[in-house]
Amino acid sequence: MATATYARPLMRLLDKLERLPGIGPRSAERIAFHLLRASEENARQLAQAVLDVKEQLQFCKTCFNLSEAASCEICKDPSRDPTMLCVVEEPKDVLFIEKTGAYRGLYHVLLGAIAPLDGIGPEMLKTNELLSRVSDGVEREIILATDADKEGEATAAYIAKLLKIAPKARITRLASGIP
Amino acid sequence: MATATYARPLMRLLDKLERLPGIGPRSAERIAFHLLRASEENARQLAQAVLDVKEQLQFCKTCFNLSEAASCEICKDPSRDPTMLCVVEEPKDVLFIEKTGAYRGLYHVLLGAIAPLDGIGPEMLKTNELLSRVSDGVEREIILATDADKEGEATAAYIAKLLKIAPKARITRLASGIP
Repeated sequence: MATATYARPLMRLLDKLERLPGIGPRSAERIAFHLLRASEENARQLAQAVLDVKEQLQFCKTCFNLSEAASCEICKDPSRDPTMLCVVEEPKDVLFIEKTGAYRGLYHVLLGAIAPLDGIGPEMLKTNELLSRVSDGVEREIILATDADKEGEATAAYIAKLLKIAPKARITRLASGIP
Repeated sequence: MATATYARPLMRLLDKLERLPGIGPRSAERIAFHLLRASEENARQLAQAVLDVKEQLQFCKTCFNLSEAASCEICKDPSRDPTMLCVVEEPKDVLFIEKTGAYRGLYHVLLGAIAPLDGIGPEMLKTNELLSRVSDGVEREIILATDADKEGEATAAYIAKLLKIAPKARITRLASGIP
């Protein structure tokens, strides 16, 4: 009697792929069959890249930017202005601002934005870490540079309210659109 | 000076992910950051699943169905009727037909369908392998069970023409729609 399900290794790969964001059963199948047809070498490189990223990268323990060490290059850099803190959603936002070269303060990466429809509440972001970070009595400007979309605005509003209990923080929101 | 590109392990993972079908730069980024946040264990399981599928699965040397050995369970099964050959696009089509339990012949998996817009010509499918397989002088019925879409119809038409030179093959096309 022929088996009427995929072989176990394929079922396992499909299951793992379907857990990735934006990958449904059909895309998982397309990717799995692509890998089955790909060279041994290509498949091995993908697997290795996944392992390497986990082994060699982490989130900075202070600002939650991506880092190859416990503290990131920006947090460790004594020339950065510690009285300015730019709050962003993702590590890629740090990258984007760094590319402009115009900002010399520090960052705090929330690792997301509040999105109730996707089940992402403020407790899943690095908001409490932000609060304890700015509760050290240091006078600083906090620039809320979350995205200009609904989720970003909601997140900025939430943080502005949360940080009211940190009296030495001056909170500004990044301008967007036509002034 | 802070780096203004992602760290190398992340760049490498993004590159590998973008080579997968249906994964653009944005989805690659979402998946990569998902993996960065996932547990070590989860990431390791995904990498292992990719390796296992390459190590433990192959395409049957006769029919190109997925197989854990050089020949698949169906080709090895002496109770299957060797005078019936069902030509399908993908291993999942075999699975689908097997689930009905109504077919007791053999299969030939093309591993795709002719799709000029995607750059997939007949030479990239297992069509020549089909031709040499049915050129053994055995009288058999060949059921063209490619999909009922444009690509499937074009593939069936191509194969019907190709197999005219195999005189002992009776070719039928799987019916679709209302009879």
